[in-house]
Amino acid sequence: MRLSWLVAVAIATLTPGENGPASAPDLPHFEGAALVQPTGYEEWPVAGTSLGLSYSESSTAGPGSFHRVYMNPSAYRAFKRTGTFPDGTTFVLELFEARERTSILKGGFFEGRRTGLEASVKDRARFASGWAYFGFENGARARALAHGETECHACHAAHGQVDSVFVQFYPKLRAD
Amino acid sequence: MRLSWLVAVAIATLTPGENGPASAPDLPHFEGAALVQPTGYEEWPVAGTSLGLSYSESSTAGPGSFHRVYMNPSAYRAFKRTGTFPDGTTFVLELFEARERTSILKGGFFEGRRTGLEASVKDRARFASGWAYFGFENGARARALAHGETECHACHAAHGQVDSVFVQFYPKLRAD
Repeated sequence: MRLSWLVAVAIATLTPGENGPASAPDLPHFEGAALVQPTGYEEWPVAGTSLGLSYSESSTAGPGSFHRVYMNPSAYRAFKRTGTFPDGTTFVLELFEARERTSILKGGFFEGRRTGLEASVKDRARFASGWAYFGFENGARARALAHGETECHACHAAHGQVDSVFVQFYPKLRAD
Repeated sequence: MRLSWLVAVAIATLTPGENGPASAPDLPHFEGAALVQPTGYEEWPVAGTSLGLSYSESSTAGPGSFHRVYMNPSAYRAFKRTGTFPDGTTFVLELFEARERTSILKGGFFEGRRTGLEASVKDRARFASGWAYFGFENGARARALAHGETECHACHAAHGQVDSVFVQFYPKLRAD
């Protein structure tokens, strides 16, 4: 009991502590220009979840998809402490179909099958805009090259509340 | 770098390792009959999120609430490994209002203000049915006594897919 507490405290202290960002075990790993699919993210903090977000008035049929946005713990703690995203910040986005009328449910939606896996990474030395965005084809792709900058970043930069991140949609990051 | 990895491996090994369940730092803490409000759960794995689940045909206005269900990491890992919930399993349920048409959004819903904080705990030595359910008045209550058993458990026991837990709604626990 005492040992595991000490160890937990040691982790919290080490990441992203005095050895710099490279000491945290949850930082992004690149092979050449490709981001390796993050591992262990299913236990990362969830910044926010949404259902069916859309940015145009064109009506779509059905409820849309659940978006679940994880954040690597060392960056999550740094952001909670400082309000800024350190280099190495990694968001993982999982998409799930919205399922309904299962079991005893008469209304509402829950997360069904996963339909997508994406990530964004902040690294000012590596990316001109500071951020890049990656698609893993719902997990089938072990490594992914960044999307072209205009494909994602223009909208993030114009509308993300803090440093190109949609903090306004994330209850665990924004100040309510 | 090497040290923090070792430490992470040590934690994974220690919880809920050879010292038994009491060695994990994420286990529920009771004061007398009252459950102390869990701390640190915002960094726990999220088993599932839903929007507006209802169990009756009576139509309700609006989209309903987001339900975000966390699970203590030691129990999460044990369940992933064994398919059973150990004593000390703790689910934390946060409720959020569904917010829409904010910022650039034209459609869909994201998690707005938090409106509730609840928990359930498995402890076969402490509770006749094995499980008990607690309300923290959206965090205002530091300690909570269990709800009467019929209030929550009857439905959980009748409809929860595994051991009175609604595993069927949780993508991270069920086998899709």
